[in-house]
Amino acid sequence: MTSHFLAQLGTLLPPGRILTDPVDCYAYAYDNSRKIFPPEAVAFPLDAEEIKAIVLLCNAHNVPLTPRGRGTGTSGGSLPERGGVALSLERMTRIVTMDAANRVAVAEPGVINQSLQDSAKSHGFFWAPDPSSAAYSSIGGNLATSAGGPHAVKYGTTRDHVLGLKAVTGEGSMITTGCYTTKGVVGYDLTRLLVGSEGTLAVITEATLKLTPLPEAVGGLTAHYRDIASCAEAIVAVMALPQTPSALEFLDSGSLDLIRSRFPEMVPADATAMLMIEVDGSERYISESCNAILSACRNDGLINAERTADAAALWRARKTLSPLLRDIAPKKINEDVVVPVSALPGFLQELGRLSDKYRIANVNFGHAGNGNIHVNLLVNPDNFPEMARAEQCLNEIFDLVIRLRGTLSGEHGVGSEKRAYVGKEIDMSTMALMKGIKRVFDPNNILNPGKLFL
Amino acid sequence: MTSHFLAQLGTLLPPGRILTDPVDCYAYAYDNSRKIFPPEAVAFPLDAEEIKAIVLLCNAHNVPLTPRGRGTGTSGGSLPERGGVALSLERMTRIVTMDAANRVAVAEPGVINQSLQDSAKSHGFFWAPDPSSAAYSSIGGNLATSAGGPHAVKYGTTRDHVLGLKAVTGEGSMITTGCYTTKGVVGYDLTRLLVGSEGTLAVITEATLKLTPLPEAVGGLTAHYRDIASCAEAIVAVMALPQTPSALEFLDSGSLDLIRSRFPEMVPADATAMLMIEVDGSERYISESCNAILSACRNDGLINAERTADAAALWRARKTLSPLLRDIAPKKINEDVVVPVSALPGFLQELGRLSDKYRIANVNFGHAGNGNIHVNLLVNPDNFPEMARAEQCLNEIFDLVIRLRGTLSGEHGVGSEKRAYVGKEIDMSTMALMKGIKRVFDPNNILNPGKLFL
Repeated sequence: MTSHFLAQLGTLLPPGRILTDPVDCYAYAYDNSRKIFPPEAVAFPLDAEEIKAIVLLCNAHNVPLTPRGRGTGTSGGSLPERGGVALSLERMTRIVTMDAANRVAVAEPGVINQSLQDSAKSHGFFWAPDPSSAAYSSIGGNLATSAGGPHAVKYGTTRDHVLGLKAVTGEGSMITTGCYTTKGVVGYDLTRLLVGSEGTLAVITEATLKLTPLPEAVGGLTAHYRDIASCAEAIVAVMALPQTPSALEFLDSGSLDLIRSRFPEMVPADATAMLMIEVDGSERYISESCNAILSACRNDGLINAERTADAAALWRARKTLSPLLRDIAPKKINEDVVVPVSALPGFLQELGRLSDKYRIANVNFGHAGNGNIHVNLLVNPDNFPEMARAEQCLNEIFDLVIRLRGTLSGEHGVGSEKRAYVGKEIDMSTMALMKGIKRVFDPNNILNPGKLFL
Repeated sequence: MTSHFLAQLGTLLPPGRILTDPVDCYAYAYDNSRKIFPPEAVAFPLDAEEIKAIVLLCNAHNVPLTPRGRGTGTSGGSLPERGGVALSLERMTRIVTMDAANRVAVAEPGVINQSLQDSAKSHGFFWAPDPSSAAYSSIGGNLATSAGGPHAVKYGTTRDHVLGLKAVTGEGSMITTGCYTTKGVVGYDLTRLLVGSEGTLAVITEATLKLTPLPEAVGGLTAHYRDIASCAEAIVAVMALPQTPSALEFLDSGSLDLIRSRFPEMVPADATAMLMIEVDGSERYISESCNAILSACRNDGLINAERTADAAALWRARKTLSPLLRDIAPKKINEDVVVPVSALPGFLQELGRLSDKYRIANVNFGHAGNGNIHVNLLVNPDNFPEMARAEQCLNEIFDLVIRLRGTLSGEHGVGSEKRAYVGKEIDMSTMALMKGIKRVFDPNNILNPGKLFL
């Protein structure tokens, strides 16, 4: 990065909105992938015009530009791998419109997911995407990864809840995609092309989001199983019911052991698998649905299944898990593969076999209603032989997922972490089209270069 | 089209699957836009390999290739405007997979929407897109236009119910987009890029579709209003409720006059606007929701509102309308504009003013829950001064729609009919990107050339 470039950047933004001191820049070097790539400068634009000016400058000087929300991603998508400028959107935090009559919110990319929820809640609505990072992650980051969360089983993921976008392409064009209404079929769907594109095509400057009415009430039940096969069977049975749960979370024996190590009373001693099933709607609907779901949960491996007093009780075991996992394996490999629900029994069994084969302890839990399992390999990155085995294990897990008609990522995205594996899922001709689209939006490969593709 | 080209086409398909006699080809010259553009040949492929071979041949000879479902579209999207080959997918009618456990169906493009519904129904599911042409239109056509229908207000449109696609691009590449699971964020969302692209980017050869559980029951109510303003006000009030109706259809005074002309008893004499509101779910949910909706319907202009005996009674007036409309104005201009729900009162009032100003009778009805109104201008195409006034009127309607933050098409698509107006909605830089994407998929502009863009 030349001093000439920096001088020009200085003409675009005031001093308080540019960082160049390496100590300051370091704060923008990481995300939850725990890789470190410091940018050479950090820019804090406040509007689309400023973003356009920065994009044009980076094009003129061939400087990489990496858009960044709040850096909570786990795949390295927001890391400036090749240096250059980190474009932090954290100061664009305006909720432009909260239009309850039309069930629409318009927000800048830096708005925190939770802030949007708080604002929508007062009108009786919510925005459906609910990544577990919701309290910290931004709408822009949610859009960039098409974030999901536990409620996706009923409500879908981010791409299902965006009506339109304003964005600045990698070439510096200001574009407007989609519409303000819930129906619209004029032109190609560029909205969903940008959602999930991980900042490689354009910088989102404003999003028109679809709101959903808040459910009247939330209830649910937990079910504990003696063996994982019975639990997986119950998942398939529940998802065959017409009553779609609002969340269907699974915890395996590794997860339950971890919880018992700190809270011995929280789960039955003989349980090796657990389901937490949330249902929302009217009290009557919840009651009827819970009865149907309790029936579907019953099989020979069931220890007990019962309705929980409230949502807090329902989620207690699940919320306990993540911090415990971080304690015992701070540098675990955390995947988010997806397989068809009917393939879960075979998949979970096979994960056990692979754990034995490669002597890599694993802990598996997640959004079973979507077949979306967080496979955690508990490794120590300083143990090289273990890491080599883990890599082979992961490779075999990915092959298995593809064989079962699944996908390598249900919510984290590719970023840099899964880049090497994308070829397992996407064939060469489809990949060539994606690269062609990248060139249309970003001919000089300025925006988040090197991400998504090898 | 040279005899050399035809000879080569003859090597790709057996004689029974190519038409070249102009009399035969004429059957593939029209759709519901009532324009006539005969193809020079019609090809009936049976699989993706044959489609690829035809695409490559057309590229080599620079012959236009227009994919076609069942020709029920209203925008000219399937018409071979520039001659060449009509690629009829009507013989690819296999439902490849009906996977109830995963709520997934895999179908070839020629499967009729209703056939898919019949097949899914026996498993307790349906595919949500429900264009009024469902009994005749194909899945491929539904995908090409991202078809909607009355139930979109609760269930969304086609793009919300597709998980993945197989397709042959305009260049002849076989691609696979999306996935088999309900979550997946690996690579760009090419699935939704193809959905709604009206056969200009690729030929869809197989679709992986998301199924939805059938509701337990269906109920609803009708409400009649003395004036349109009160009716529009009620629409806004109903859509502000947390209970989302499964359909919210509106009929204006022109529609009601038409119904009364044949069935005097069907609507109250003093009604000038009517709502038909469908609710689905459990009987209890329907009952609770109908009560809330009845309350929201009440205002000073209400004549009466009451629950209907069954779904058939609910839809009676609406189903009566379309044939009557075709009788009195067989060549009417039928639009499908969308405005935000809260803008409906002003929009409907303004439509009345424009009808007076241009002396063009109009009949307006449609999917008010999405703000999607079928504006019908009752014109006689042989009356040139009237057609000139209609064109000006339409132009003003479109400007109004855009000013109200609406869209020119909610479900019909652009095709050739709306091509001249797209510039009102999509700015030049966004349009340039769309054209760039078109070039990536179809560099020789073989596929449905001239559609969507001017």
